[in-house]
Amino acid sequence: MERTISDLWLKRRDIVSDGFDDALTYISKIIPLSIVEIPTGTECWTWIIPPKWSLSEGLISSGSEVVLDVSDHPLHVMSYSQPIRKRIKKEELMDHIYTYPERPNAIPFGFSYYENNWKFCMQHNKLAEFREDNYDICIDAEFTEGTLKVGELVIPGKNKQEIVLVAHLCHPSMANDNLSGVAVLIGTALELLKQPQNRFTYRFLFLPETIGSIAYLSQREHLIPNMKYSIIVDCVGHNDVLSLQHSRQANTELDICASYVLKEETLMYREGAIGEICGSDERVFNGPGVGIPSICISRSKFWGRGEWPYPEYHSSDDIPNIIVIDNLVKTKNIIIKILDTLNKNYLPKRNYKGPICLSRYGLWVDWKKDRKLNMSLNDIMCSLEGGKSVLEIAKETGISFSDLFAWLDKLHKEDLLKMQSGVSD
Amino acid sequence: MERTISDLWLKRRDIVSDGFDDALTYISKIIPLSIVEIPTGTECWTWIIPPKWSLSEGLISSGSEVVLDVSDHPLHVMSYSQPIRKRIKKEELMDHIYTYPERPNAIPFGFSYYENNWKFCMQHNKLAEFREDNYDICIDAEFTEGTLKVGELVIPGKNKQEIVLVAHLCHPSMANDNLSGVAVLIGTALELLKQPQNRFTYRFLFLPETIGSIAYLSQREHLIPNMKYSIIVDCVGHNDVLSLQHSRQANTELDICASYVLKEETLMYREGAIGEICGSDERVFNGPGVGIPSICISRSKFWGRGEWPYPEYHSSDDIPNIIVIDNLVKTKNIIIKILDTLNKNYLPKRNYKGPICLSRYGLWVDWKKDRKLNMSLNDIMCSLEGGKSVLEIAKETGISFSDLFAWLDKLHKEDLLKMQSGVSD
Amino acid sequence: MERTISDLWLKRRDIVSDGFDDALTYISKIIPLSIVEIPTGTECWTWIIPPKWSLSEGLISSGSEVVLDVSDHPLHVMSYSQPIRKRIKKEELMDHIYTYPERPNAIPFGFSYYENNWKFCMQHNKLAEFREDNYDICIDAEFTEGTLKVGELVIPGKNKQEIVLVAHLCHPSMANDNLSGVAVLIGTALELLKQPQNRFTYRFLFLPETIGSIAYLSQREHLIPNMKYSIIVDCVGHNDVLSLQHSRQANTELDICASYVLKEETLMYREGAIGEICGSDERVFNGPGVGIPSICISRSKFWGRGEWPYPEYHSSDDIPNIIVIDNLVKTKNIIIKILDTLNKNYLPKRNYKGPICLSRYGLWVDWKKDRKLNMSLNDIMCSLEGGKSVLEIAKETGISFSDLFAWLDKLHKEDLLKMQSGVSD
Repeated sequence: MERTISDLWLKRRDIVSDGFDDALTYISKIIPLSIVEIPTGTECWTWIIPPKWSLSEGLISSGSEVVLDVSDHPLHVMSYSQPIRKRIKKEELMDHIYTYPERPNAIPFGFSYYENNWKFCMQHNKLAEFREDNYDICIDAEFTEGTLKVGELVIPGKNKQEIVLVAHLCHPSMANDNLSGVAVLIGTALELLKQPQNRFTYRFLFLPETIGSIAYLSQREHLIPNMKYSIIVDCVGHNDVLSLQHSRQANTELDICASYVLKEETLMYREGAIGEICGSDERVFNGPGVGIPSICISRSKFWGRGEWPYPEYHSSDDIPNIIVIDNLVKTKNIIIKILDTLNKNYLPKRNYKGPICLSRYGLWVDWKKDRKLNMSLNDIMCSLEGGKSVLEIAKETGISFSDLFAWLDKLHKEDLLKMQSGVSD
Repeated sequence: MERTISDLWLKRRDIVSDGFDDALTYISKIIPLSIVEIPTGTECWTWIIPPKWSLSEGLISSGSEVVLDVSDHPLHVMSYSQPIRKRIKKEELMDHIYTYPERPNAIPFGFSYYENNWKFCMQHNKLAEFREDNYDICIDAEFTEGTLKVGELVIPGKNKQEIVLVAHLCHPSMANDNLSGVAVLIGTALELLKQPQNRFTYRFLFLPETIGSIAYLSQREHLIPNMKYSIIVDCVGHNDVLSLQHSRQANTELDICASYVLKEETLMYREGAIGEICGSDERVFNGPGVGIPSICISRSKFWGRGEWPYPEYHSSDDIPNIIVIDNLVKTKNIIIKILDTLNKNYLPKRNYKGPICLSRYGLWVDWKKDRKLNMSLNDIMCSLEGGKSVLEIAKETGISFSDLFAWLDKLHKEDLLKMQSGVSD
Repeated sequence: MERTISDLWLKRRDIVSDGFDDALTYISKIIPLSIVEIPTGTECWTWIIPPKWSLSEGLISSGSEVVLDVSDHPLHVMSYSQPIRKRIKKEELMDHIYTYPERPNAIPFGFSYYENNWKFCMQHNKLAEFREDNYDICIDAEFTEGTLKVGELVIPGKNKQEIVLVAHLCHPSMANDNLSGVAVLIGTALELLKQPQNRFTYRFLFLPETIGSIAYLSQREHLIPNMKYSIIVDCVGHNDVLSLQHSRQANTELDICASYVLKEETLMYREGAIGEICGSDERVFNGPGVGIPSICISRSKFWGRGEWPYPEYHSSDDIPNIIVIDNLVKTKNIIIKILDTLNKNYLPKRNYKGPICLSRYGLWVDWKKDRKLNMSLNDIMCSLEGGKSVLEIAKETGISFSDLFAWLDKLHKEDLLKMQSGVSD
């Protein structure tokens, strides 16, 4: 995962661009991606696919010396800037300079995909160097017909119902946002490809944020009814705890499952309602007229409550160095565990009447060995009516999913239980 | 509004009386009232219309001097007292004297519409003047066939569904209770008569409290199904904040709307459940077998929690002087605003899929200009499923009704939205 | 009730045993019981009726002297111990000794109905007397074909729906657990037998705990649909407040009723959810595939929260002396009151429209006499829509059931009300 990040990091992965295409090609050498292409100008619901943007030069010069050059850092020119070449008054130039005063040594990430504009982005501290009255500026950018591309990998399950896993691959020269998510999903896919067939079909998507989801779903509306859940993975490498943003529906099996796994597997984590932590592709997947329950896994702070996601967010400081490799591994494991729990979860339905004669079937649990399970047996025996999943019963009784799953498995072997699937079927 | 109060104040507006009739005649010179008459003796659900009561004299004399005379103050004789003329022992007389010890210089308002009795009402401090052993008393009152009268004004709307606005006009010689409510509804009617046709039909009723509502509704049961909501206006002139008493249903569009308008338009106000603030005609309109959601607008304290509505309540101290004219104007404006919000409220239903491409339609809201609206756009776009009204979305997101209404109007103009009426239709 | 306890106390009332049968014979001399018999070996859902167990001798001897003899106390041999007679090493013997270190002078109650084992039970302090290396032990016990017996008394009501009252009669030589419950139900039955026919049918059951309920219900499944509620009475004599454990359904008419009666009739009481206080026959009656809402009346502490039911629980200290006779009487009265309230409860449905003209029907309640009822009249008049029972309205308004019942009775006499039964019908 480390390698993917360092290899792709400095690529100009603008939303329709050669850099983005290169990154997809790179990934398809690791996992078997197919590429979906949607041409410039295509109407996608209320959106239109923008043209491909290619930047060959970006300069500010005082005449005597070059003050700023995009070849020094890809962020120096705002993504999708209009081409321009002229001598300009300092005053006018300043209207087209974008800085982060709060982080004066970092270059901010600027973009303007849908409004015609041009901008140079630079360190706030660099402003002091602009002492001349006039500057020569040049942005040599080309807008051409292209295709927005989405990398897609489907791992078929027993069931046509899908869990969609999404990471956005755009955002030039940033590492944590979101090559961290991309790397984690590549790792997740590699692991799932090795597993025997699962209950659900998994669909991995690598795409440009927002417009990529809109393009993909609007052109493939027939897929939506089979999309049971989606998981958006976003900014998961930096040094912070995991954050779970719930779906708009808030209390689906996936929500319960993810919340449960995070509680069991991590010491600390954030949990928030939709809009409180992220504002990414769940806005499309869980959005109007689509409505697929979508959780986000990230390490971002509460953006919806006014917090900054992480200090280096959307700036030239978002470099591979801020990523803790172990955080990527842990995130991947959490996602695998969530999928695994979803996979195993079922609706147990009793085959008995009255409390079971536990000793007769070797089902007795000594309270000296497991007081909690012992004290919960009666509640568990009363919960197996087919309406609650193993996960819900685990949550209600406070017994771990795996302990409960194991105890119920004994009942199943004694024919005291029917395993109804159907929670998500 | 001031004039109405001073002109009608001292009239003996008992429930069936010449004074009440005169007051209706007075009002019909300002707004076009029609008069509904229900004769004495009519069975109205479990009630019977009482006879007309006319008082020509009310005296207590010690023989040598007149100690109390109703011509000094209309409240000196209890409303609907039986006629009596005799010499009486002081002890027996005292059983028929009604005072307010807590407000010793005020004459209390006494009434006994449905039980045969007679009483003199006086200042508690006056009791000390009764030093004789015997008194001559005279109440010259006549009970005759009459008609209970209700003044009615209907302003037709596009919709047959009605909002009923009620103020009781009875209670002799009291100003705030409830000529304040009467004056506010006259003002409201005058303003609505000038407006173009509204969504709802408005029905204004001026009537004797309780029995008037019962008489009216029981004789016109066919009107009830079209009565969507009612607003009872009661004691709104004195120097206190506004009080909103919710309907028995508690959470209707009218409740949400009134609560919302009070929050937006006033600094402080009271809010209580049914029975906590008032005990007036909402008991009939929102009562058994009628069930029209009815809110009360007043300035009363929490009567249902043991508070006294206002210091001068039901006494000779309830005079025009305690009414702040500006409070009447503000109350009228609040009612107009509630009606206006109800009028404008609709069920927005989206015509788009996915989040809208806001910049394309000029719908983007810069977070520097309106951070709250900017942060809420995604939630708003997800709320336009036709099941929630503009008002409900405003309440949920914390955006003001007018700002939200304006933003949604832009969507409507871009054909991104259908305006479904139907909340109250 | 005192007599029953002292007469039955020391009997060896093991689950299938002569002692248990004797106790049932004893009770049937007080109330007309019929005896249901289920033979050893019968499959009852997932359970099998155990054989009859008869103990004729139980001894530990050091050779020179008898160290322990079951004829000194019936608890000295664990219930359903296997027969054994041999010379044994002290070390091996110690694996078959059961003591309560926390209560070192009491003999604990041991039982092993479904696993083959044998044990002696003794005072923890007595262990010090075991100084020899070898002991002669003898348990002369016989396992034979027998019948599990349930004592049953049905008091027919107007309605086929039943309230089942259950006390377990097993547990040798213990008094509070549960001869207290048995005595209270005998007293309850005697009182109900004297009453005129009630709405519900009452079914009293005296049985061995758990297996008795399972045996009875599994062999009489056709009775279950008519079993509306059950009340389990368990450990109600010792010096503690009453405890109400709610049914699994938690909010049935019986739950509301019991909770209400305890609040009205006692100064202090415990209230807990199912599993928090008791773990007795409600596990069967309110268990899987049966589901009869069952409350438990006891004086036990919160067992489900880790408390010990009462200090002498399951030990030789549970003697008649710890039972406060007045507690039995009070428990019986509470049960009678619960049944009486259930009996009287109905769904009042109004026959009027609008608020009632209270004075016309003598229904007015002077606020000086009963302020609470006066202030609640309007809410009460609005609650009589047929969907809420008298009990629910009493609970909501805070008026006592009897005051409300009395006031509603006046409405009924004026034909302003229909008494709909049907809550439990």
